[in-house]
Amino acid sequence: MARTPRRHRRLVLPLLCLLSQGATALLFAIFVRYNHETDAALWHWGNNSNVDNEFYFRYPSFQDVHAMIFVGFGFLMVFLQRYGFSSVGFTFLVAAFTLQWATLAQGFLHSFHDGHIHVGVESLINADFCAGAVLISFGAVLGKTGPAQLLLMALLETVLFSVNEFILLSLLGVRDAGGSMTIHTFGAYFGLSLSRVLYRSQLEKSRQRQSSVYHSDLFAMIGTIFLWIFWPSFNSAPTELGDGQHRTALNTYYSLTASTLSTFALSALISGDGRLDMVHIQNAALAGGVVVGTSSEMMLTPFGAMAAGFLAGTVSTLGYKFFTPVLESKFKVQDTCGVHNLHGMPGILGALLGVLVAWLATHEAYGDGLQSVFPLVANGQRSATSQAVYQLFGMFVTLGFASVGGSLGGFLLRLPFLDSPPDSQCFEDQVYWEVPGEQEAEAQRPLRAEESDTQA
Amino acid sequence: MARTPRRHRRLVLPLLCLLSQGATALLFAIFVRYNHETDAALWHWGNNSNVDNEFYFRYPSFQDVHAMIFVGFGFLMVFLQRYGFSSVGFTFLVAAFTLQWATLAQGFLHSFHDGHIHVGVESLINADFCAGAVLISFGAVLGKTGPAQLLLMALLETVLFSVNEFILLSLLGVRDAGGSMTIHTFGAYFGLSLSRVLYRSQLEKSRQRQSSVYHSDLFAMIGTIFLWIFWPSFNSAPTELGDGQHRTALNTYYSLTASTLSTFALSALISGDGRLDMVHIQNAALAGGVVVGTSSEMMLTPFGAMAAGFLAGTVSTLGYKFFTPVLESKFKVQDTCGVHNLHGMPGILGALLGVLVAWLATHEAYGDGLQSVFPLVANGQRSATSQAVYQLFGMFVTLGFASVGGSLGGFLLRLPFLDSPPDSQCFEDQVYWEVPGEQEAEAQRPLRAEESDTQA
Amino acid sequence: MARTPRRHRRLVLPLLCLLSQGATALLFAIFVRYNHETDAALWHWGNNSNVDNEFYFRYPSFQDVHAMIFVGFGFLMVFLQRYGFSSVGFTFLVAAFTLQWATLAQGFLHSFHDGHIHVGVESLINADFCAGAVLISFGAVLGKTGPAQLLLMALLETVLFSVNEFILLSLLGVRDAGGSMTIHTFGAYFGLSLSRVLYRSQLEKSRQRQSSVYHSDLFAMIGTIFLWIFWPSFNSAPTELGDGQHRTALNTYYSLTASTLSTFALSALISGDGRLDMVHIQNAALAGGVVVGTSSEMMLTPFGAMAAGFLAGTVSTLGYKFFTPVLESKFKVQDTCGVHNLHGMPGILGALLGVLVAWLATHEAYGDGLQSVFPLVANGQRSATSQAVYQLFGMFVTLGFASVGGSLGGFLLRLPFLDSPPDSQCFEDQVYWEVPGEQEAEAQRPLRAEESDTQA
Repeated sequence: MARTPRRHRRLVLPLLCLLSQGATALLFAIFVRYNHETDAALWHWGNNSNVDNEFYFRYPSFQDVHAMIFVGFGFLMVFLQRYGFSSVGFTFLVAAFTLQWATLAQGFLHSFHDGHIHVGVESLINADFCAGAVLISFGAVLGKTGPAQLLLMALLETVLFSVNEFILLSLLGVRDAGGSMTIHTFGAYFGLSLSRVLYRSQLEKSRQRQSSVYHSDLFAMIGTIFLWIFWPSFNSAPTELGDGQHRTALNTYYSLTASTLSTFALSALISGDGRLDMVHIQNAALAGGVVVGTSSEMMLTPFGAMAAGFLAGTVSTLGYKFFTPVLESKFKVQDTCGVHNLHGMPGILGALLGVLVAWLATHEAYGDGLQSVFPLVANGQRSATSQAVYQLFGMFVTLGFASVGGSLGGFLLRLPFLDSPPDSQCFEDQVYWEVPGEQEAEAQRPLRAEESDTQA
Repeated sequence: MARTPRRHRRLVLPLLCLLSQGATALLFAIFVRYNHETDAALWHWGNNSNVDNEFYFRYPSFQDVHAMIFVGFGFLMVFLQRYGFSSVGFTFLVAAFTLQWATLAQGFLHSFHDGHIHVGVESLINADFCAGAVLISFGAVLGKTGPAQLLLMALLETVLFSVNEFILLSLLGVRDAGGSMTIHTFGAYFGLSLSRVLYRSQLEKSRQRQSSVYHSDLFAMIGTIFLWIFWPSFNSAPTELGDGQHRTALNTYYSLTASTLSTFALSALISGDGRLDMVHIQNAALAGGVVVGTSSEMMLTPFGAMAAGFLAGTVSTLGYKFFTPVLESKFKVQDTCGVHNLHGMPGILGALLGVLVAWLATHEAYGDGLQSVFPLVANGQRSATSQAVYQLFGMFVTLGFASVGGSLGGFLLRLPFLDSPPDSQCFEDQVYWEVPGEQEAEAQRPLRAEESDTQA
Repeated sequence: MARTPRRHRRLVLPLLCLLSQGATALLFAIFVRYNHETDAALWHWGNNSNVDNEFYFRYPSFQDVHAMIFVGFGFLMVFLQRYGFSSVGFTFLVAAFTLQWATLAQGFLHSFHDGHIHVGVESLINADFCAGAVLISFGAVLGKTGPAQLLLMALLETVLFSVNEFILLSLLGVRDAGGSMTIHTFGAYFGLSLSRVLYRSQLEKSRQRQSSVYHSDLFAMIGTIFLWIFWPSFNSAPTELGDGQHRTALNTYYSLTASTLSTFALSALISGDGRLDMVHIQNAALAGGVVVGTSSEMMLTPFGAMAAGFLAGTVSTLGYKFFTPVLESKFKVQDTCGVHNLHGMPGILGALLGVLVAWLATHEAYGDGLQSVFPLVANGQRSATSQAVYQLFGMFVTLGFASVGGSLGGFLLRLPFLDSPPDSQCFEDQVYWEVPGEQEAEAQRPLRAEESDTQA
């Protein structure tokens, strides 16, 4: 047994990468085509400058989202002392895979016509959003799963994400631009359900590595800060051009300032001696972005955004302190990054906030803008109350898909050939990476310093 | 006394966060409303595409500014060996608080009508600018103040910043798009005056921590590089759409290249043995962005920008070497980050350069563009010489507000319950943060490596 | 001899910086003027909104490119354990110098009329591209050259880069928007030729420093990730507004996902025990951006982009494993960063892919868009086959300029007064930087912790 896994690993990950790449490439060759804005033969500068400019109006936000997915999520998870290579490396691998696969899964559901999937900048944004959900789930199982397991998780989760998103946005007419439900709630509960199935009763054997060191916490703050600054772009990337994107960015900005203040307040308050805890700052301060994911395009008001952010930061910080231990001891859910606190609870709060704000929507408050925020209400197909009920229903659909899908995923990931790390080797890069020593270099340094001084 | 501060701290910071968040939320509820570009009921795609596109034309620059404030300033200050959590963490806290508070303070002065403050993307840019000034002041007192003190400093400084900015831009008709005066000069001398009042004669007790280690200098370079690359967006964010923003970005870019070259030249020249000093590179290379803050929207010419940047880099590097020690020994001003060298002197040089370029403004050089750069000169209300005098006057007003305000701030921050760190515990994260060890992990590593090799 | 170099160094670098800055400033004063989009007197909001908006449509991409040059290249090279200051610092110096110098060199060739060089946002993009090529060459000689040598290299390379670029784009009508040839192939083979001339047979003396440590690999991943996320902007920055930029971004995005998957697959496959190698992930995963540099603006199709990226990632990873050692042992080319694998071979593949895609260009596939992608073919001046031949010829011209120019550069850099590091002091920051210790701080830490606990 001691030698088998390593030989397995040598083949499982490459085979999975090559197979999946071969399959997506084949499907791309058959189905994926440029849309009318990216095909040289179909595109012309038209009369309507807003349509012409759509790429330019969305691309900067897309790049911010792209930075959040790879820099933000990647580095946020580097906080573990011996899992930095895996955190940022597997984020890279899993997100790259998901971008391809989501282009197909979402494309078949959203932009399939004339026998082809038609891609443009919206495809890129949507695929990055799906990668966000997958990386949230990765956060729950961080350190306890190998790269082959993660690729399989991404394969399954991408499909279910796309179906859930299609049901909510296209079939139920639910509004969820920034993805409080489709991204955060879905990603969190998918990951938590999966982690429940993969519960390790012997994780104590690796517990000494499940913490940060000074420098790893600083690296993680790179992730936090990039997520924080670009979150206004995340929530606004897919909303209507014009006042919709503008308002979404504004609301998200105010919500994040409030969740930051409440996180610092609560972190100092609940610690034994008034000292701040980096885990709270790195994570809970971001809950303000999650909680307005659904409602930031709506007429939430700057005060509403601030109140929501404050609440989310508070709930999230308290969750890290009081709920994460219970989640493990009582519910057998091991949540490495605390995604339940950053994405789960704030995601549900965000869905409920969306219910409330949709319920309060009036023609007076939105004017002609009602058409772009709640088209079905503007067209008279639904009342605001009915829209609110649909929003609430969307949340339960999401919870259902996430928990059933995540559990399925957990059983899938228990397939023996997937090279899961042993209980004593969790949170350890050396299982999957050639890791350079740190010690040798340090030891040689004083010597070199002397040598250099002598020479000078 | 030994135990009191810690219990205090446990309450002071949370109370201050919660109180200020409660107060701003209340004021937001009463006063802050979406402006006509963010309110669903007020906005329409109009005929004038430039106005419609204003959000899209300003938002990418805003995001660059946002990155500078949080990534740039945050990581630039991580250079201290044991103060990384505080540097990036308190930057986060103080900037988030300032964004809320500045929205109110600037809103009352700039965009208050019909009983309400009307917010849009310009509010976000302006609030981030105010946070920039506050973080410059933070740089002067870095390591010697606790988070409660910093929040109080931000509270006071934001009000004075907004009043000074209002006097300069709205009452005196001074031009200062990139804030050589309103941001850099103000922030630097406010912080230095404050640091003067908080002078610690026993700072030697913490001196061993007032330096960098190898990795902390690399983290700080993240801050430097992000400030450097996005500075063209910083100076151009609030300027007129069209040639104004374009020209501002260009001038700033050239100025920064020159300050980088002069910093490398001077750093090697003034060191004993020709070796470069990271402190110079991290800071003085940025002086080119500060020095064209006022004049980069003007017809400075690319050569003018380059000459200004060269001068600023030179002055700044010499300041670090020769003036910072004098500032402490003779003037009793302890300037941790050397903000006098990066923001103070280059800010004043920038103000004077603005005086010069305004004085040289002619209808020939600016054509119709004179209206957007110097509207009062274009309208015939002022001569170019008169504009130059106003510019100079604006600099002295700024220096007055900054030094009086900073001194007041210093006395405020000496309030005993604010939990200032003791002289022997300056530049030390452990006073305010739960800090993970670095040692334990290192010690265990070789063991784990063996274990892993055996298993494989 | 022991003391001479250091005194030399003290003067050579500053003198070179000051002289070159003086010369460029003089040339800027004489020749460089704002273009009609940045000059206050020449610019007006016109009728054609596309031209008016050009700055706004290109500036966000420019900022992404700017981030790639300074953050991306800078941090990618920080992987060496004791060369972080030099990697990010000399990147900063050399790139800043190149931006000035390239504005002149490219300006004389591309935008010189009425006796002046006219600068705007395109000048900034083009200068950053030239800096990219210079930094690729820097990667080949990393750790074995001093800053004065690098400045001289940049001086020569910038001129040759600009001439080669002019011949290809303006004289031969070759298409190469993202620079597979002009940037990557040129930069790589220039650097490799130069490294060949500077071959060090005694480099073994510094070999113990030519590797990474845990944290330096994480810093390098910052570079990798920023290069990866912004590469769509790099390739699309100079292409035609409209569908051209949009399509380029899309193709680059898909190509990069594929090179990432193939890199992970191959890295695990070729290692002895299935473990991943950070060097591959940091570098080869980016080859997908290089390989579509020429063809991403063309009708490559999403599948074509994916196939190209997959091939590039594979070739690049295999290159690191099998070809780099041969390059050193057989060809006497020491390639520190493996630029032959990341830029050389993928650049040539990208040029050949451009030949193929140009050869396949038809009026049917491109419609009216043929005018913007292949204007000479659209105008009937050339057939698609003829365009393909020109593309191929352009590649050989580039290889010729790069290898002859790089060799010349190598002889130039052997000038004795340029303060090259001795064989035993390669890959060592202390030769050029005042480097803080790491040890002292560590030793004091436990003491301080105790002290703090006692006080509390």
